[in-house]
Formats: sequence, structure tokens, C-alpha cells
Amino acid sequence: MKEALREAMKAERLGEVPVGAVVVHEGRIIARGYNKRESMNDPTAHAEIIAIKKASRRLKNWRLSGTTLYVTLEPCLMCMGAILQARIPRLVFASFDPKAGACGSLYDLSQDRRLNHRIEVCSGICDDEAGRLLREFFVKVRTTKEGEASCPQGGAFWQTS
Amino acid sequence: MKEALREAMKAERLGEVPVGAVVVHEGRIIARGYNKRESMNDPTAHAEIIAIKKASRRLKNWRLSGTTLYVTLEPCLMCMGAILQARIPRLVFASFDPKAGACGSLYDLSQDRRLNHRIEVCSGICDDEAGRLLREFFVKVRTTKEGEASCPQGGAFWQTS
Repeated sequence: MKEALREAMKAERLGEVPVGAVVVHEGRIIARGYNKRESMNDPTAHAEIIAIKKASRRLKNWRLSGTTLYVTLEPCLMCMGAILQARIPRLVFASFDPKAGACGSLYDLSQDRRLNHRIEVCSGICDDEAGRLLREFFVKVRTTKEGEASCPQGGAFWQTS
Repeated sequence: MKEALREAMKAERLGEVPVGAVVVHEGRIIARGYNKRESMNDPTAHAEIIAIKKASRRLKNWRLSGTTLYVTLEPCLMCMGAILQARIPRLVFASFDPKAGACGSLYDLSQDRRLNHRIEVCSGICDDEAGRLLREFFVKVRTTKEGEASCPQGGAFWQTS
């Protein structure tokens, strides 16, 4: 998760909502990603999607069996959908996203028995650091009145309290 | 939708589950996509995601305001999430996907008031043609016993009845 936080900081330096992700396979990081929605003008360029695409290229397989995805913020619907599509068996995330999260907050897509894949989830790891990074980012955004950027990667407004 | 079906046929010729999509803006097709999950080894390479990424590049904006997405199969969770992220206001799809659809079948993400975007949806357009294309594909897959490919784009098994 420390490495995912490092990715989140790269996003922050670009003025992007600071969310970062890494994919681990057999104890090694095989892919990294950070939110680039604004800089790439791409609504799908969330940290998780970028990391998943890289991991698939690395493993030459769209099935990311045996991997763990670490991400600093609870995934949105799109990213949880991508995690399901990629058959990622384990997800570890830091902070909950009460307005857009799809792994416990608005929805819990990790354990829907109607879907063809279930995900083992661990949350709250490095929550303090990830939350602080997001809060500080949004305080800065509000101060500069660029309210438009106040959506995690493209999701809903992230709580500062 | 005829153009989306044309895209779906390109996928079929590659041995991919035949799903196609187009994005229309001001009466013109600005992006096209077809399912390339297997050929690109990319779990996110669904027709909709490919078309959305292209449309964003074309409009130089991650917000696809004023666009309509046409797709031959009800979008899965990942793709509905991407449609929400891109703020696409209108979605037209052909066939329902009873095992993985997130626009009426398993979920309906188009009208969730907790999310920051709602989508106007029209379904059933060219359902016969899109359904026939999918059925014929899966009959072929079963005949050749490549059961592994029998998931629309990476979603759940598509009904033949």
C-alpha cells in the first residue's frame, strides 16, 4: 500500500485527484497506476484501470489470477467492474469513498453471487495517509476555487470529515 | 445501431464475442469500438470502453456531454460505470444481458439518485439482429467446444433462449 500511496502522490503532483494503485503477483509489483483523468482527457483513466491494463500486458493474459490489487481509495463502479472482469481474487484498499464506492459504500460488488467472480477484500490499510492526501488535495482545490476537480478520479465528492 | 452491429461483426470475424458500439455527437459518429478482450489480452477492452476512450480523444474532453452511446448488448458493470464517469447522457442498446447486464438486468445503474449522473436509456433497438449474432456465435463456440470464450466480452454467459 505504501507503493500505491507513492503512485497517488504522483497524481497529486500533476494536479489530479491523488489515487494510486499497484498490482502484485507472486510477491512482486507487476504494474502501477495513478489517476490521470484530467491529464489524459480520459474518463476511464483511473489508477485501477491503468494498473489492470498494464498487469494484463505484463502477464499476457486478461485473467489476472493470483494477483492482489492495492488501491488508496475504494474503487468506483467502473473499477470494481474491471476488477471483476479481470478475475482479480484479492483487493486491498485504504479509504472508503462514501459517495461513489462500490465495495461497501454505495454498492458491494465483491460478493454478489449472481456474478461469476467473488473478491476477497481488505479495507482500511493506510487509511490515515490516503485520507490525509485526499483531504489536503480537496482543501487546496477549494482554496483555489477549482471546484470542478473535486471528484475522486471522476467519481463523487470525497468527504473531508 | 446498424453501425454498432457492423462493429460487432468485426469482433465476430476475430473470434471475439460479437459486441459493437458507436458514440454519436451532433448527429455524427465520432468513435467506434468492438470487443477485443481476447485479441488484446485486456479485460477492459469491451466495445463501449474502446469507443468511449476514442470519443474522449476526439472531443479532447473526458466529459462526453451531448453524446449518445449505441451498443449491441446491455453494458456490464464496468461499462455502465464508464458511461457514468464519462457523463454520457443517452444510451441505446439492443439485447439485454440477463447474466451480467447493469442497465436493468442485474442492476440498473442508469437511475441511481445517489450517483452524480443519470442516463436516459432506450433498449431493444435491433434486438433481433444483435441477439442472432450472439446466439450464432455461441452455437459455434459450443460446437467447437471452446467453452471458455462463452462470456460476452468477459461478462457472464449469454442466454441462447
